[in-house]
Amino acid sequence: MKIAMAQLNFHIGNFDGNVKKMLDAVKTAKAQKADIICFSELATCGYPPRDFLEFEDFIDLAEKAVKTLAKAAKGIAIAVGSPTRNPVKEGKDLYNSAYFLANGKIQHVQHKALLPTYDIFDEYRYFEPATEFKTVQFKGKTIALTVCEDIWNIGNKNPLYKVCPMDELMPQQPDFMINLSASPFSYSHAAARLKILKANTARYKVPIFYVNHSGAQTEILFDGGSVVMSPNGKVYDEMPYFQECLKTYDLDEVLTNKKNTVQSKDKMTLIHDGIVMGIKDYFGKLGFKRAILGLSGGIDSAVTAVLAARALGPNNVRAILMPSEFSSDHSINDARDLAMNLGMQYDIMPIAKPYEAFKEVLSPHYAGTTFGLAEENIQARTRGLLLMAMSNKFGNILLNTSNKSEAAVGYGTLYGDMCGGLSVIGDVYKVEVFKLAKFINKDGEVIPENTITKPPSAELRPDQKDSDSLPEYDILDPILYHYIEERKSPKDIIDMGYDKKLVHRILRLVNINEFKRYQTAPVIRVSSKAFGVGRRMPIVGKYLS
Amino acid sequence: MKIAMAQLNFHIGNFDGNVKKMLDAVKTAKAQKADIICFSELATCGYPPRDFLEFEDFIDLAEKAVKTLAKAAKGIAIAVGSPTRNPVKEGKDLYNSAYFLANGKIQHVQHKALLPTYDIFDEYRYFEPATEFKTVQFKGKTIALTVCEDIWNIGNKNPLYKVCPMDELMPQQPDFMINLSASPFSYSHAAARLKILKANTARYKVPIFYVNHSGAQTEILFDGGSVVMSPNGKVYDEMPYFQECLKTYDLDEVLTNKKNTVQSKDKMTLIHDGIVMGIKDYFGKLGFKRAILGLSGGIDSAVTAVLAARALGPNNVRAILMPSEFSSDHSINDARDLAMNLGMQYDIMPIAKPYEAFKEVLSPHYAGTTFGLAEENIQARTRGLLLMAMSNKFGNILLNTSNKSEAAVGYGTLYGDMCGGLSVIGDVYKVEVFKLAKFINKDGEVIPENTITKPPSAELRPDQKDSDSLPEYDILDPILYHYIEERKSPKDIIDMGYDKKLVHRILRLVNINEFKRYQTAPVIRVSSKAFGVGRRMPIVGKYLS
Repeated sequence: MKIAMAQLNFHIGNFDGNVKKMLDAVKTAKAQKADIICFSELATCGYPPRDFLEFEDFIDLAEKAVKTLAKAAKGIAIAVGSPTRNPVKEGKDLYNSAYFLANGKIQHVQHKALLPTYDIFDEYRYFEPATEFKTVQFKGKTIALTVCEDIWNIGNKNPLYKVCPMDELMPQQPDFMINLSASPFSYSHAAARLKILKANTARYKVPIFYVNHSGAQTEILFDGGSVVMSPNGKVYDEMPYFQECLKTYDLDEVLTNKKNTVQSKDKMTLIHDGIVMGIKDYFGKLGFKRAILGLSGGIDSAVTAVLAARALGPNNVRAILMPSEFSSDHSINDARDLAMNLGMQYDIMPIAKPYEAFKEVLSPHYAGTTFGLAEENIQARTRGLLLMAMSNKFGNILLNTSNKSEAAVGYGTLYGDMCGGLSVIGDVYKVEVFKLAKFINKDGEVIPENTITKPPSAELRPDQKDSDSLPEYDILDPILYHYIEERKSPKDIIDMGYDKKLVHRILRLVNINEFKRYQTAPVIRVSSKAFGVGRRMPIVGKYLS
Repeated sequence: MKIAMAQLNFHIGNFDGNVKKMLDAVKTAKAQKADIICFSELATCGYPPRDFLEFEDFIDLAEKAVKTLAKAAKGIAIAVGSPTRNPVKEGKDLYNSAYFLANGKIQHVQHKALLPTYDIFDEYRYFEPATEFKTVQFKGKTIALTVCEDIWNIGNKNPLYKVCPMDELMPQQPDFMINLSASPFSYSHAAARLKILKANTARYKVPIFYVNHSGAQTEILFDGGSVVMSPNGKVYDEMPYFQECLKTYDLDEVLTNKKNTVQSKDKMTLIHDGIVMGIKDYFGKLGFKRAILGLSGGIDSAVTAVLAARALGPNNVRAILMPSEFSSDHSINDARDLAMNLGMQYDIMPIAKPYEAFKEVLSPHYAGTTFGLAEENIQARTRGLLLMAMSNKFGNILLNTSNKSEAAVGYGTLYGDMCGGLSVIGDVYKVEVFKLAKFINKDGEVIPENTITKPPSAELRPDQKDSDSLPEYDILDPILYHYIEERKSPKDIIDMGYDKKLVHRILRLVNINEFKRYQTAPVIRVSSKAFGVGRRMPIVGKYLS
């Protein structure tokens, strides 16, 4: 028996596009003599569809897509994820299902039992968990169908859940398991996924065909990396990360394989490639081609520019250099050098005139006050306004260049440098931004060396340095990580050896700046805890603040 | 037996403040000879605590608060909501619990069974549902304790749930029921709540002491309106909306009462009073006193200004009038008249100079283009920048003045008129904004008549009217309502008699503008479906767009 795995990039709500993509894949798989083709979780409607699932019309369209695919399931079977209406009045209205389509009709439906409802996931908002578990028979084989999280509670060891779908299915003696996933990327997730797949084969001793979604949906990256596991716990094949892939595998070969073929999981490579895909899909799925961004000569905008150029092509990225009286000489040179290295159009727009005009309008109202944060913010917002003016006039989406460290402590100006349709490196701490810059330069200087080596500065007042207001990033970032990713208490963090006063100050900054982060662009998620939909905090809260 | 109900305004994460408030109430209730005092759901930590619940330290503080309250439960029993750790490894880490504290200790804990996970609610993200139901004995009475949603599935008729906590508790023959709620306001919810309470008494024939949270937590309003129901289904007492209240009731009187005392549920009064509380608490809980807003002479900013003045006092609200070459003569007069009617400080800042400076910087880059949306947005953003400059300099929070209709179709400038820390009327459709203005003027002109009667305009180009780009609001608003609140399909809405092309255009506008709404301020929620945390839509979706 031959099994095709289609690791494809679906688009939420684009039923026609998704179905066409799957029908094309069915054709290719047939040419490869596949008996079964597998698509990922909720492939018909895209994942995560969020509250579109509350629209009856949206579910009608998903049902129609399944019917169209069922008709195409002749001479080949199709395993595909789609939402299903729950016929029982009690419980949620929908199931998150794996369909098995064969002989031109729906042969079997297995609903998902384990519904992630944490971080970016809201599945229990929409779906009822499965309580029945049945294998499907096809061409003499018994197949266990599971959906994503269903394989993450092996032998009921995951404290979140009370049922283990594969434990339920094993008495029916499946020959192999197909898992339809939409498993989001984080830089540590690919390794975790292989580990859980190995644990599954160790317990169940059957081959696993794990097919994952590839592509970005706004801030969430799906890295693909679909896996075929031999029953001996070796990786028969791992599909590439961050791209579509269709391959057909021979079950007998998978059953007897002894090699273990695993691709590299280098952190910086994963973050780099993931973000590049994130930018590309955000633009592609919204129907835009061109980006714009402000280049300050600093490392954040430099890294963002490189990633954008690699995602969209340098011809589609326009850089704007906006020096002020506080900009150092090297800033404009560093920015210009980078734009030229990348072969990117750049324009220089000094902010002096609008900044002076604002000061003039405000001067009667500002009388008796001294230069401070308000004046710094006017500069940042003047730049934001110029960038948006270019964005609106020429149809380029503005890219936000904030990093995770400054987003965390609110070191940024709302409606100023926090503008933009997409935050590119907002889930990358500053220390990691430096690593990313060095990774980018590994085969030769792309980002000017001076951009990497000079001390970070917002350049909004004379001789300003980030370290005037913040601790050094190699102290700040670990504190933030322990609080944000690990949700440690102030006491825990102080016990690790950090200064008590500093820890309290930093955690307070994080918590009082929820209002700023609430209003910022979606942040491409590369860590296990990014700002945005996966981290839901009260704005008026009074905890540690 | 005497039962005190404490309808209080708690602050998320402010354990010390919340406990102090409860200890004060305990003292008052004792003076009123109460045997039991009841607080609302998750009163120790405030509701909704969101992801703070994922911090062990936060739960430790909640447990400490319960212990402090238990010590105070001498000579009086305390019913209070607080999170509880789930001792079982499987399932979620926490329960959402009702504690019954008596004789200086925790006498009983009843967990919540029905965990709302829809709209603004994420309870299954954190909590495990109760599976055991036990009454508590106190001074010869048997008491059924329930938490909020637990009473919303009478006889298992609510399709969302599979268990009915009161059906489980009734065999233990409770003498009365205490329900601890944090039930958010919408303009139709107070009536729905009375209906469900009546249905409970009709089925169970016991008195109900329903105590609700009062106060706003960022965008979510809790209206109070706590209810004592007699077993005959009559309302013994209903506490006022949008304010704190503490009263002690005699159980025997509640049992025998025949009167039905219900307060008015006039929609405009509720929306008006709710928003006023929302503003007040947003500022109070963040520790701010003063607001600033732009007054255009239009109805949205006028209504916002009145609500802000009523919430914070006119001395704490500063209006900025920012005329341009496209402003009509009456605009500045109408805005000035309003500020003077309200007794509010106002300043005039013409935007011409910065606007001209921007045009000058941009002119080489804009060469060959004509005046359009980009130029309109520059004006809106210049105003936004001036408002933020005043906000940053003087510590006033900027209020956003967008209405729900324009937020829905994206008729607003991101980082321009969409700036602000809090959206005051962003859940009020334009037609309702007019009604709110008339409601405000019911006892005499506060908002200038001309502001209400003139055709709405953004005044960003010569003789502009909203109706140039949008249908009249009495057509637009119902289409939006059917789509947003009712989640109807395009076909459903067209079948109601609306123009097909228009319906498709409007729904497309709603869906392609998710990116704008993603970056806007929290919106004070007054309807059953507000933009923000309760409506989660993909940005890169391709449904109806």
